[in-house]
Order: sequence, then structure tokens, then C-alpha cells
Amino acid sequence: MSGNTLGTIFTVTNFGESHGPAIGCVIDGCPPGMELSEADIQSELDRRRPGTSRHVTQRNEPDAVEILSGVYQGVTTGTPIALLIRNTDQRSKDYSNISESFRPGHADYAYWHKYGVRDPRGGGRSSARLTAPTVAAGAVAKKWLKEQFGTEFRACMTQLGELPIAFESWEHVPHNPFFAPQADVQALEDYMDALRKAGDSCGAKLRVQATGMPVGLGEPLYDKLDAEIAYVMMGLNAVKGVEIGAGFASVAQRGTEHGDSLSPEGFRSNNAGGVLGGISTGQDLEVAIAIKPTSSIISPRESIDIHGQSTEVITKGRHDPCVGIRAAPIAEALLALVVMDHALRHRAQCGDVSLPLNPIPAAAP
Amino acid sequence: MSGNTLGTIFTVTNFGESHGPAIGCVIDGCPPGMELSEADIQSELDRRRPGTSRHVTQRNEPDAVEILSGVYQGVTTGTPIALLIRNTDQRSKDYSNISESFRPGHADYAYWHKYGVRDPRGGGRSSARLTAPTVAAGAVAKKWLKEQFGTEFRACMTQLGELPIAFESWEHVPHNPFFAPQADVQALEDYMDALRKAGDSCGAKLRVQATGMPVGLGEPLYDKLDAEIAYVMMGLNAVKGVEIGAGFASVAQRGTEHGDSLSPEGFRSNNAGGVLGGISTGQDLEVAIAIKPTSSIISPRESIDIHGQSTEVITKGRHDPCVGIRAAPIAEALLALVVMDHALRHRAQCGDVSLPLNPIPAAAP
Amino acid sequence: MSGNTLGTIFTVTNFGESHGPAIGCVIDGCPPGMELSEADIQSELDRRRPGTSRHVTQRNEPDAVEILSGVYQGVTTGTPIALLIRNTDQRSKDYSNISESFRPGHADYAYWHKYGVRDPRGGGRSSARLTAPTVAAGAVAKKWLKEQFGTEFRACMTQLGELPIAFESWEHVPHNPFFAPQADVQALEDYMDALRKAGDSCGAKLRVQATGMPVGLGEPLYDKLDAEIAYVMMGLNAVKGVEIGAGFASVAQRGTEHGDSLSPEGFRSNNAGGVLGGISTGQDLEVAIAIKPTSSIISPRESIDIHGQSTEVITKGRHDPCVGIRAAPIAEALLALVVMDHALRHRAQCGDVSLPLNPIPAAAP
Amino acid sequence: MSGNTLGTIFTVTNFGESHGPAIGCVIDGCPPGMELSEADIQSELDRRRPGTSRHVTQRNEPDAVEILSGVYQGVTTGTPIALLIRNTDQRSKDYSNISESFRPGHADYAYWHKYGVRDPRGGGRSSARLTAPTVAAGAVAKKWLKEQFGTEFRACMTQLGELPIAFESWEHVPHNPFFAPQADVQALEDYMDALRKAGDSCGAKLRVQATGMPVGLGEPLYDKLDAEIAYVMMGLNAVKGVEIGAGFASVAQRGTEHGDSLSPEGFRSNNAGGVLGGISTGQDLEVAIAIKPTSSIISPRESIDIHGQSTEVITKGRHDPCVGIRAAPIAEALLALVVMDHALRHRAQCGDVSLPLNPIPAAAP
Repeated sequence: MSGNTLGTIFTVTNFGESHGPAIGCVIDGCPPGMELSEADIQSELDRRRPGTSRHVTQRNEPDAVEILSGVYQGVTTGTPIALLIRNTDQRSKDYSNISESFRPGHADYAYWHKYGVRDPRGGGRSSARLTAPTVAAGAVAKKWLKEQFGTEFRACMTQLGELPIAFESWEHVPHNPFFAPQADVQALEDYMDALRKAGDSCGAKLRVQATGMPVGLGEPLYDKLDAEIAYVMMGLNAVKGVEIGAGFASVAQRGTEHGDSLSPEGFRSNNAGGVLGGISTGQDLEVAIAIKPTSSIISPRESIDIHGQSTEVITKGRHDPCVGIRAAPIAEALLALVVMDHALRHRAQCGDVSLPLNPIPAAAP
Repeated sequence: MSGNTLGTIFTVTNFGESHGPAIGCVIDGCPPGMELSEADIQSELDRRRPGTSRHVTQRNEPDAVEILSGVYQGVTTGTPIALLIRNTDQRSKDYSNISESFRPGHADYAYWHKYGVRDPRGGGRSSARLTAPTVAAGAVAKKWLKEQFGTEFRACMTQLGELPIAFESWEHVPHNPFFAPQADVQALEDYMDALRKAGDSCGAKLRVQATGMPVGLGEPLYDKLDAEIAYVMMGLNAVKGVEIGAGFASVAQRGTEHGDSLSPEGFRSNNAGGVLGGISTGQDLEVAIAIKPTSSIISPRESIDIHGQSTEVITKGRHDPCVGIRAAPIAEALLALVVMDHALRHRAQCGDVSLPLNPIPAAAP
Repeated sequence: MSGNTLGTIFTVTNFGESHGPAIGCVIDGCPPGMELSEADIQSELDRRRPGTSRHVTQRNEPDAVEILSGVYQGVTTGTPIALLIRNTDQRSKDYSNISESFRPGHADYAYWHKYGVRDPRGGGRSSARLTAPTVAAGAVAKKWLKEQFGTEFRACMTQLGELPIAFESWEHVPHNPFFAPQADVQALEDYMDALRKAGDSCGAKLRVQATGMPVGLGEPLYDKLDAEIAYVMMGLNAVKGVEIGAGFASVAQRGTEHGDSLSPEGFRSNNAGGVLGGISTGQDLEVAIAIKPTSSIISPRESIDIHGQSTEVITKGRHDPCVGIRAAPIAEALLALVVMDHALRHRAQCGDVSLPLNPIPAAAP
Repeated sequence: MSGNTLGTIFTVTNFGESHGPAIGCVIDGCPPGMELSEADIQSELDRRRPGTSRHVTQRNEPDAVEILSGVYQGVTTGTPIALLIRNTDQRSKDYSNISESFRPGHADYAYWHKYGVRDPRGGGRSSARLTAPTVAAGAVAKKWLKEQFGTEFRACMTQLGELPIAFESWEHVPHNPFFAPQADVQALEDYMDALRKAGDSCGAKLRVQATGMPVGLGEPLYDKLDAEIAYVMMGLNAVKGVEIGAGFASVAQRGTEHGDSLSPEGFRSNNAGGVLGGISTGQDLEVAIAIKPTSSIISPRESIDIHGQSTEVITKGRHDPCVGIRAAPIAEALLALVVMDHALRHRAQCGDVSLPLNPIPAAAP
């Protein structure tokens, strides 16, 4: 109810603060009988880990995960899976100068007014560090969905600041620090170097995809699959926009163009992004998200303090100049968690989940 | 769990099909002691009612609402408020030709594969007609929020197909059938007339706003206010994209530009759209949504039937050539329902809800 | 959240007041594809209907149910099933004398202090009349469980006031107005006649049973099957005690006696009442409930009014002198709703539901 | 959904197994601004800790709690409070002989059939050890309720096996290992010594009470305060019966006797147990629970193994011969958690919580 649990049947309850002793989550509702080890989870955490290139925060966190429960002799038991990640590289004194003022564009202001108390160290609860437990839980969902249905998740960056990134191939994504679908990312490197030198931050746009989707997932009227995708994506730190399929471009389309026609060989296009009437069609899920520039920057900004007085804010500490760079594995995890929950919800009401009954043509590359 | 209930404390459970005997909803969790009559709800229903101009479906539904419970001597009692709207103008035989085939871009295909059974009459449960109970429930939320905090909700169309609609003033919105913020809507009339003649449909873009917002609404980590706004908006029939504040434009902004600076007089801009860290700041909520073109069109489309065989589909029946035209009151209701629920959730954990503590400058017009 | 919804996957949202225009419920999460008609539901409603013998309230309500949604061509579609029952025989003026005073032992006092407003007509929302929608929803659950697993539900009275009712056979239960498992109920008739003459009311004890139970239903840690059974039973109007299996008698048992031993032919006893560790074993569910005497009696009682002043209360109107008499079908419905919800919850996490794998010996008669 | 979360607004998500690395819970929804330290929680954990007398299990667990999140500078922040308790004294090899057979009366059988996999070490997830996180969470609820309303919780044993325990005074309860309200507990000591010598186990009956209750807590129709009390109590390991107020004795009462009459000085009795119509009246909550004898005993029992073959089971390991002995602090915690959740639910819908408006006379001693 207080918003720290994601999902309805496969639930993830997230806890922790950026500079507290630990962060983690409790997964409830995982089907029993699946092989699961810390290595299955660690590999996903390593993809979002800080400190892996000069373009992200230099905070050095191993993000080593410990499974506290729910797994016996290497197999899930159906009971809650608690995951623990100790914080190890806090530098809390960096935040003493902002403990009584508000960073423009930061959650500081809102937390203070909501709770009347706030942990300013590293953003406390509002830190993007809290996406690590989400990624860990997502790894469990990904594993189950791949084993059950062959469903897989991937994400890439399609725009960095004002720089569009043309899609070349998914193959390039793991081979550069930007999760860019391009072989040559020198332009992105240069862009980020200039940005860092300017003491500023920038936004990014990402594409998120699920392939091998079962048909029939999603609950009308309100808990539509696309509604829940929008919910998790907009809930990701710094996201300001979400599109499914054709997204905002669909406004200028005609019905004769937008509606994906069907043939015995499958759909002929995917403007729907894999969802019709809130229910998956078996086509690839296609999602795009807009990520705003980080608010924690070293350039001085006009602001006020907790007494309402004028002040100037400079954020020290170690921050990502573009939080979108590390967002790909997080967005994949969120999409996987939504699909996982809806797979179980579907099974509850309708029994076995269907794999695509009709051949579904490949989505755009 | 099966997705027909919206909200957590102020909940709306929606029922009905387009051509069944009735549609309606049960509101649970409404605070006791508020004056409420059918007239309070009917006025909002009348704003989304079909048949009010030549640009919308000609189905003639009075959408007369009956309060079945929860109100005693004109005052809410704190017990569930059941609202009933009888369907009166069904023409179910219009649908006999599509009962065994799938309309491209329509929920037909997904419902069939999910449930193994489907009510084809008027789209059954997937019909936009089911937004009427949402609007009715939204009327209750709007009334309470206005009385408690002075919070108000409004929406207007900002693009019709490829036609952008420049914002002139909110005053024009009630005076034309498009909810357009323009004095002269002749271009929109002509556009729609041509479209209808072509047997096609088009999309639309809407702006949705809440003014007089309390500070502190929204629950981190997952149930952020903006996350829940994205959820309800993407869940609205035909919506393919949602933006909060600067939305997709924030990708190309710098941190020095995007982060709304603060002064003792209030925020200097509203790129955030009224939400920071998932919690309301007291600034206006600013939301934009993209609505796709209707799939129910009379132009013939390539499709398949339930046996997977090729067929051609022409949708008869009475349909909106642009569902975006009647979407404004629905989008307002959805935003009101989210704010209402979060106002009560906030009160549960943190006690009294705060009105803005700092002066908040007016948002862009 | 405001407590008018029962269940998590198979949910029942109940609305209405005793003397409002209608009562009813919305069932969400019913599996698609089950044949369902109003007759299936009406037969259960008729079992709890008032006015069927001289020992119950003489209010004359046909309790005719209308299915408003969720059924198409006689088959459930997987969308919400709304059920409507119009109130037809209200006599609201009977309550004018108690609208400002509190009946001892009645919800009056608590509602007034909770909501600050109260509908005194027939007890308003607190009336046992609101069990009718529960019975209607239970009829749907019963039908599905019987078709899927052969699970059946029955209840009988085992004590009326201080009069114990020896168990003879389930066969007698439908043939007397008390749901008593006895062939000769003259003693019960006489008891009730004397009670009514005295202007007083009495309590009752009921036994509730499910046979043909699947194995494995129930969710540890908190949502155990027996915990949820206790929840629904204690939530039934006037219930003050709930037992599972050996119940309070288990306090004086030894471990060597209580623990039901197992043999290849099945369990040798059923002290557990069909639940171990919160999970069904496949044995019969055995539940007992204690129902207090009705608070609405014509004998004068000492009380206070809403101003805290002394007053004397006499309840006119038409009331059941023993609400336990009509409680059997309600208790069956509640047990069915719990089992139904847990069958779907089990299917969500663990897949197919198991029928008993080991032979389970018959429970005590 | 999978049953490991208690509550709706103040939620407790419990994780862990008896012999896993750790147990714990995540509390979500705690109001911000309350002082909270590990000592506040440890004192309650120490009351239920094993190994404190010769009448309980000799497993030596310090049950030291660590607060991982949600508290900053000694004050709750409104974000999730994660509590961790490491297991330190597991002797898992004691269980090798029962890993393939079922203890009569134990959750073994049900877990195996539900999940198809089971952790036999110390009962795994079904162990009463998992009440420790519940007690820890209850300590937080108790502290808040005492500070806000002066509400307090206490429990005592009223029967040990067939031995009734006459109520003398609450003052004796902390001074004997049985939580008995008697000065002289020699009879209880002797009873337990004989039982242990016989290699058997026994049941117990407890009384649980809340004093200083606010008026108006509890949500009709289904989530009544007494319904939720029954749910948590029946969900406690080994509980087979729950009574509120007069409980099963109310069956033989008349309406003129049972209904607690009111005077300007308050209620004249408390047959209701502090709840009318599912809502608190401000009188003391009075609850009784029946606890069955432990199934883990060293006396040989007839049973079957996982292949359905006959076997004889002797449970080694260290077990409580009467789990009721340590149940008092657990039952208090459960009652506190229900009241806490309903206090916040009430505040959500109805605003400020009321303290008793009328003077409420003392309950029975």
C-alpha cells in the first residue's frame, strides 16, 4: 500500500536506502521447482553495476547478492526469496551541504514535504541505487519466463541527449558502455566527455523489447498489460515518457495504416507493440522510454532551503551524468517482472498459458 | 486481481459490456459525510455521452446513472457507492459478420485467445463504452478533491490526426465538440468531415492537467504518482503514449535546463509536470497522451478468422472516427481517481494532507 | 481496502443497504467457459430467503437475482459478473424510534462513531440482509468447484440456544427449517415458539463442511487456508467463535492423540479438520461456528442516545429471533468462496491443482 | 498473494526458514517521525526467545535483530523497515530421518503435496520460528499505538492441557515461564515435567487483550476487525479455535443477556469483546485462542513416506512440548498488527481516529 511492493502474484517488496547498511527485496509467489543460484542473479546485477566505465558514477559497489531464503538444495521452494545486497562504498559526508536545501529537479523537495523527515545521504530512498533489487528480482522472472516460454528481454539506447542513435543490430549492445545498437560509439564517447567537462547532465531514450511472448497476458479493464508496462517504466527513476508500439507517432496515423493487418502467416506489422485491448498478442512487446537529465550536477543552481530562503545548490558526490546509460538492464527487468506477474495472473483465472497459436512475423529489427 | 478494480483505498470496480443489460461500478472507500446526488455524476457523464455531435458515434445513449447504495439522505455514508447505467440503444446484429473474424488493431484477437470465448457485440468488454463508469466514479473523486483542497481537473485536445492545435485558452474548451483550446475550430470540422467521407479514422493528442494540487501525494518506490498516472492513462482505450511534464522532450534537455529551479516565490518552471521522485510538489500536474486511430472502420482490411483463414473485414455498426474527441472528460476522471486514491493513501500513513507550503507559480497557460 | 471486497483472485465486491433500492455484488476473476444462469444462483438464494418459516423474519423478499454482465450466451466470459437484487419490502418507518439511540449489542453504536453518519433503516449496511450477495457469489464458486474437483459444501445446526442437536444424518438437513441433522425437530419448534413469546432471541452453533477437497490449497505464512476460513466465518454477522477440526477440544488433547496418523489407506482421523500448516490435505474441511443471539429484540433494554443520555430501546421491525437458523447456506457460501479463491491462487503459483493423491478415509459422519 | 504479507496499509512481509541463513521481515507503511531503535524490538523478541526455561525448546538462538532500512538518525522515515535475524543454532542433521516421511499432524504432508519440494530441516518455512519476525514487526506497531492512543496489548495462558488456570492478576504473567496469571505455578511445572518424561506434547488456551482501544476501527463488510483478528490468530501455528468476547458461550445466551447495555457511564458488560458490527467500540478487545499439542514428539507414530508406504516416525530435534507456552508475545504482536493496520485504514477513509467518546467501564479483570 505504501508503494514498495511491485506485482500482485509474483510480488517484489523492495527495501533500503542508498547509504544505509543494505538494500534488497523479498520475492513472493515464485513458482517452486526452478533451479536458482546467486550466480543467476549476479550476472544481471553486474550489467547495471556502477563504476564500470568512466561515463557512470565512480561509486565502487560490488553489489554482491546473498539469497537468504526460498531456495533449498539449489531449487526454489515456493516460499519467499529474500535477496540482500550490502552497501559498501558510501561517502555520506558529501551530502552535508545539501541536507537543508533542495536540488532543483530532485526528489528532495517532495520527500521533505511528504514525510517531514528525509535521509539526504545519496538521495536516501529516492536514489537510483534502489533499482538494484529490482534488477535482482527481474533476473528470477527472466529465468522462469525463458525456461517456460522462451520469452527474452533486451533493451538498447536510441538517443543520447540530442544525439539520435541509429539502430544497426542488437549484437552491438553488449559491447559498449552505452547499450547502443551501433558498432562505432565514438560519437557517444565524445558527447559524454564534453558533457562531463561542462559539469552538466543529459537525457536518453531507450527501446525495450520482449520476444517469444505468450498470447493472452494482461487483465482488462484497468490492469491491462500496456497499462502495467507504463506504470513500471514511468516509475523508473527519471523517466518522463512511455510509448507502446507506434506511440506518439500513432496520433498522425490513419486507422487504415495503424491497425496491424493479419494474414495466415501472422501479423503484417507491429504498430500495436504486441498488445491489443490490453492483452498480449504474441508479437514482440515494443516499448520506448524517455529519461530526463540527472538533477545531481556540479553546476550551481538557484534553489531554496528548508526554511524557504534563497540559496545556491551544487551537488557534490558521485553521480551518473546520464542515468540512461545504466538503465537498459533495469528496464528489461521491469518488463520481465510485469510479464511474469501477468503470466501467473493469467494462469490463475484461465489455466495454462498459450504460446502463440498463429505464426507471428518478426518485428522490426 | 482480474484487473477490473482501480485504486487501492478509493477503489472503483467496473462491470458490464457494450451490449449487455447494464454497465456500472462500485466505489469503495469514499469518505463519509460528503453531499452527493445523481446530478453531480450525470453532469460529467453528459460530457462524454455519445451522439452529441456529428463527429462521434451516433449511438443514442442517455447514460442515466442510478445511485444504488452508499448515500443516505443526500450524504455519503462511507459504505460502497454502487452506480448503475442501463444500456438502451444496442444494435447487436451489426456485429454478426465479425463474430468469427478479427478486426486489425482491435482487441478481438487478444480476447479470443485469452478467454476462448468472446462477446463480439459492440466490442463487448473491450468497448470504450466502459469508460462511462470510470467517468461516473471520477465525478465523485473530483467533487471531494475540489471541496477538500480546491484541486481541479481539465483536459483539451492538442493535436487531431496530423493537425496540431495551438493552445489559445482553456475557456474555449467547453464551447466546441473537440475539447479544443481554440476559438475557431473550422479546420477541425473540415478535417473530420473529410475523414468520415474517406471511411477512415485518425488519432489525437490530449493534454490533461490538475491544478490546486496538494504536496506530498505519491508512494515511492513503485507506486509513484507519475507511475500510477501512466498506468491509468495507458490503460485508457487506444492510448499508445504518456508523457509527464517535459516528456520525450526531456531527452534532449540538459540538467541545467530541465531541473526546475526554486525561489522563495515558487518554482520557476514546470518541466517536472508537478512530480519529483514520484511525489507531488504542489505544482500543476501536466500530462500528455497519444491516442491511436480507431480500429473499427468501414474500409475493408485484410485479416483472418478464428480458424486462421484469410478474410476481409469491414466494420459496420456506429463508431467514433476519432475516439480522442470524447476522451477529455475520461482522462480528467482518470487523473482525478489517481489523485484521490493517493490523497487517502497519504492520509493513512502520514496523516493530514498538506496544501502547497510555498507559493507555486502558475504553470504555462 | 474499505473492506467490502472478499478474496484476492476470485473477488466479490458487495454493495447495498437493507432498505436502499438494491443490494448486489460484482464477482471478478471467474474462470471463463462455465455455463451459468440466474437459476444456478437463485436456488441458493432461496435457501437463505426470509419469510420461509414462522421462525425467521417475516420480511417478504423474493431476492430475485439479475445477472448484469460477465455471461454471454449462457457461458461465463472471464469478465466481471455483476449480480443485482432489488429490495422490495422495506418498512423504513419502523426504525424512526431508534435513529438517535443505540441498540445494545448492535452495530449502531460502532457505525455512528466510525462514520459520523448512519442509515438506521433495517440496520443499513450492517444488516444480515447483505449476506444475500455473498450467497449469490458463493453459488458461482460452488458450481465451478463441483465441476472441476467434485468439491461440495454443506452445513447444519448443532446447537440451538442451550439445546444441543445430536447429529443423525446430513439427509435430514433440507427437510426442516432449522437445517438440523435430525428427523424430528419438534423440540426445536417448541423452543423457538417459547422464545418468540418471551420477546427474546437466542444463539446457535453450526457445523460447516467441504468434501472432495483438492490437496495443497492455502498459502503460508499468513494466508493459511484455516486463517482465511476463520476470517470469513468470524466476519459473518453475529459470529463470535470459530473452530477448525478438533477446535477448543484440542487444548486438552495430547500430541499422541491429536496428530492424525497416516496409513497407506489414508488418514486415520481428522482432528486437523482438513488443514495442516495452513494447507489442505484432501480430508474434509471441518468448521464450527458460534452465533450470538440477535440484538434486535422487542424486550426493552437500557441504552443511551447519540447525545450520551440514558434511554430505553425497544426494537420494532421484523427480525430473526435466531439468525443462526438461516446461516447454514451463508456459511457454506463463505467456505466455498475461500476454497475457490485458494484454488485459483494455487493454480497461479503452482500450476494444476491436485486431487487427493492418497486415499482419504471418510470423516466422521 | 502468496500469503507471506500481513496487512494492507501497515504491511509485514515475512521471509525465511527455520534452518536457512536468516529470517526477517519488511514493514511497509510505518508512519514517519517515530523514534525507533533495535532495543525497542529486541525486548519483544526476547520474550518469545527459545531456551529461556526447561519447558521450551533448548535451541539456543539470540534472535538478535538488525534494522537494515527505514530508520535515519533514530527516527522512522516512512520508507520500508527491513528487519534481519540471522539463524545461528541450526542442527539440520536431526532431520535426515524424516526428510522422506510425514509427521502425523505436521505441515510436512501438505507442503510436499503443494509445492512438490520441501525443506525438512526444522520444519522449514512451516516452523514456529517464523513467528519471530512477526513479533519484531508487532513491536513497532505496539510502540506507535501506545504513543498515539495509549493502546496496550497483553496475553496470558488460561489452560495448559487439561489443567485450567484461574485468573488471579495480570501482574503475575511476566514472573513465570508460562505467562500464567497466577502467583503459584508449581502445578504447571509438574505438569510439564511429567509430559516431557512421557515424550508427549499438550495444548493450551490463551487470552489476548487490548486496552485503551480507539473507537471506530474495522471495515465492514468483510474486513471486520473481529474477522481480521480471527484471521491472524487462526493463522498462528497450531491454533485451532478463536473466540471474541463471549465466544462459544454466546450460543447459550439470550439476547437480553448477551447484548451489552449502555449507560452514560459506559457499557455495563463486554460480551461483545470490544467489537460490534465488526467495528471497535472502545471497550477492551477480548480474544481467546486454542492451541493444539505439538506434532513433533519423540513417541513413535504410525505414518507413511513420500512413496505412500507405511513407516513409523519419531521426531528428534529440539521441540517445544507445548508451543502455547511461548505464544503469548506472538498473540499480542498479531493483535497489535491488526489494530495498527485498521488504525491507518480508518485514518485513510475517515480522517482522524477517535479515542473513546463515552466513558468505557473496565473489562473483567
